[in-house]
Amino acid sequence: MGGLAEHLVMDSVTALTRIDTQRARAVIEADQRLDAMQRSVENHAVDLIAAHRPQGKPLRELVAAMRISSDLERVGDLAKNNAKRVLAIEGRAYPPRVALGVEHMSDIALEQMKSVLDAFTSQDLSAALDVRSRDDEIDAIYTSIFRELLTYMMEDPRNITFCTHLLFCAKNIERIGDHATNIAENIHYLITGEQPVEARAKGDSSSYLSADWAEPENGRGGH
Amino acid sequence: MGGLAEHLVMDSVTALTRIDTQRARAVIEADQRLDAMQRSVENHAVDLIAAHRPQGKPLRELVAAMRISSDLERVGDLAKNNAKRVLAIEGRAYPPRVALGVEHMSDIALEQMKSVLDAFTSQDLSAALDVRSRDDEIDAIYTSIFRELLTYMMEDPRNITFCTHLLFCAKNIERIGDHATNIAENIHYLITGEQPVEARAKGDSSSYLSADWAEPENGRGGH
Repeated sequence: MGGLAEHLVMDSVTALTRIDTQRARAVIEADQRLDAMQRSVENHAVDLIAAHRPQGKPLRELVAAMRISSDLERVGDLAKNNAKRVLAIEGRAYPPRVALGVEHMSDIALEQMKSVLDAFTSQDLSAALDVRSRDDEIDAIYTSIFRELLTYMMEDPRNITFCTHLLFCAKNIERIGDHATNIAENIHYLITGEQPVEARAKGDSSSYLSADWAEPENGRGGH
Repeated sequence: MGGLAEHLVMDSVTALTRIDTQRARAVIEADQRLDAMQRSVENHAVDLIAAHRPQGKPLRELVAAMRISSDLERVGDLAKNNAKRVLAIEGRAYPPRVALGVEHMSDIALEQMKSVLDAFTSQDLSAALDVRSRDDEIDAIYTSIFRELLTYMMEDPRNITFCTHLLFCAKNIERIGDHATNIAENIHYLITGEQPVEARAKGDSSSYLSADWAEPENGRGGH
């Protein structure tokens, strides 16, 4: 599931930066496989818990597997949503540099996904906690992309639809980063039996962004 | 969990339509309780599966409880995100009718939540399937709000930040509707042992919305 989820994210970003609708359609199609795998992991874990009544770490392994497969299934949904947006913005005028930020952000999200899946395979607690601490970086880039896209929208209303879709794409990638963080927390639980002590504030600070920084003073022109 | 999740959704929408920051902060605070309850439901279900090795319907009840509590926890996250956006748009000029669509949409989402939780309590399969079939209505309203908000943004760039936050709020409510649908599908699974046969296409059609309908012909002036 991890490998497939990574591929969906990678392909959806490539589809987005190149406006490659064929690749986008392939992502939408392949996401169904991830959904089926998640259901199968869950059923299998429940069967094993019922059959063997595991305790301690063996039980935590099955619970963590269920939770992580649910995170990966949602990562696939987010990649699929970005792929759908490629179909919406196809054929539109495209200010190329606006996609650069989204691409950079998704490179980091993909690195986070890869690191956390490696940490799961090698049961490496400190690697998992590293992933968790790096999520702030994605959130910061998202907040900066949010501002940048709003500025483009204010500069020229013809950018509004395109930039709105890109905003949702960026938000989806930020959420992929959150799922990498969830997985890191489940690795902590798997290894130690506890959730990480200090609850991380999840999500981006753009939810709190007031617009004063970006408000054109007299109706047009951005800042 | 269902009652608390409903309250968070209701309060976050009231906070949004009245720009009531105190209520918004209370939602953000209360969401933590929902998260704790979800973890506790999950732990309890796993303990019961290991202790009693249930089969058939008793096993499905525990699996469904885990899945539904996970949906409710995410409904709380979405309400919390909307509450955060109230803090972002506080004190801003507010075209009142733009919030009406969001309010209408959330009334339907809340009705869906209420109906699906009732269907769970009474194990009423046909009521659950009704909820599932009504999700299209929320998606249609969301798509119409998406268009309306983009039009406001094109009419006046001073609306852009506010409308962008409202767009994300509307999207969050649309996702709350999706979670009601997920819960309906889990009730189907609980009662019949099968997932509903015909997989529903989830999500909104606005992901596919190209902008041609809303593109100003010469740079300004709406649609």
